[in-house]
Amino acid sequence: MTAILLSGGMDSTTLLWWLKARQPGPIHAISIDYGQRHRIELECAARLAHLAEVAAHEMLALDLAALGGNPLTDPTVDVPTAESKRQRDTVVPFRNMLFATLAAAYCATKGIVDLYMAPVKDDYAAYRDCRRPFYDSLEQSLRLGAAHDAPWAIHTPFVKLWKQDIVALGLKLGVPYGETHTCYEGLRPACGVCDACCERLAAFAANRACDPLAYAAGEKTL
Amino acid sequence: MTAILLSGGMDSTTLLWWLKARQPGPIHAISIDYGQRHRIELECAARLAHLAEVAAHEMLALDLAALGGNPLTDPTVDVPTAESKRQRDTVVPFRNMLFATLAAAYCATKGIVDLYMAPVKDDYAAYRDCRRPFYDSLEQSLRLGAAHDAPWAIHTPFVKLWKQDIVALGLKLGVPYGETHTCYEGLRPACGVCDACCERLAAFAANRACDPLAYAAGEKTL
Repeated sequence: MTAILLSGGMDSTTLLWWLKARQPGPIHAISIDYGQRHRIELECAARLAHLAEVAAHEMLALDLAALGGNPLTDPTVDVPTAESKRQRDTVVPFRNMLFATLAAAYCATKGIVDLYMAPVKDDYAAYRDCRRPFYDSLEQSLRLGAAHDAPWAIHTPFVKLWKQDIVALGLKLGVPYGETHTCYEGLRPACGVCDACCERLAAFAANRACDPLAYAAGEKTL
Repeated sequence: MTAILLSGGMDSTTLLWWLKARQPGPIHAISIDYGQRHRIELECAARLAHLAEVAAHEMLALDLAALGGNPLTDPTVDVPTAESKRQRDTVVPFRNMLFATLAAAYCATKGIVDLYMAPVKDDYAAYRDCRRPFYDSLEQSLRLGAAHDAPWAIHTPFVKLWKQDIVALGLKLGVPYGETHTCYEGLRPACGVCDACCERLAAFAANRACDPLAYAAGEKTL
């Protein structure tokens, strides 16, 4: 049995399809309702978990909105555009650490010790909690903090891949990218101009592939 | 500026008074609403934070009830009595790790990097996340996962003290123990028979001191 943190975005969805292809055991998908402004992300995660026929899909609540000051949870803060290149502004402090630990708490109740997460190389610069040394340390914290000795592992097989490598892999695996959500603006059709949309479109363009997602008219080409 | 995780129990309340006596800077108290069955714990924390005149008292939500199967959050599970000695049954997986990380996320938004927590020696056997090696590892995870390099520290000055040492210290510091909450049953007057009440009464008895808390008739003596 394994578990995966599934956000409903491209990276974790590709990881889910990759995991399905590599190991036949039951997979528990875990999504975190962290007060994100755009509920569409969670709806996508639920649909994708269903499509992947996971053994269980758990939605865990974590009130990060109370921390404030972040555009992903706070409607008074603008989202960064590609132009502003302020990826750092979307950092919720220790977000991945909280997600991983909450997921681990769920795993502990199910006897699961293998948790998969999908940090990718593109996030490396802005988000230090997307780097492997951080996950090595977090694994150690889980092992020391667990109720019993257990070989806790946080697997991050995509940590050295760029988003365009993810898309290349996902296209081979038949990932239903049209069901994933990326747009920071929470729009569907996607806005096509925010940082996240631009990165996504660039990843498809690098693969000379067409993104099956619908975009606002005239915004699909970079 | 420092922050402290304040549960409203004896240990963290004593730590708050200890901290007030040792350093003059502003203290942010953080309490976690983790879906505990007994809201009285959070009410006590709020009252104690007010009495201690902290700079701020933040209540952060964390939905551990969704994980289920634990007597502290799940009304269908019995609380352990002193007789049953099943302290292990009250373990919410990675509870302290989640609390510390959520508190750290709050601290990060305030520019605080010193977080105080009150694990004590009595919890050492049953709760591995009350041991210092765990906190050393967690500190390292915070340093590696933080948005910027910062000397994150989780201070646990009571980790080698027994509960009776805490009470001895708190009596000197004038801790208002009558305002703290301990009883697993969530009763006020306290039940006096659950594991937590028994430990508390034993700690006062070891100090030849009288617990100012009200107990159900006839239950105050061990």
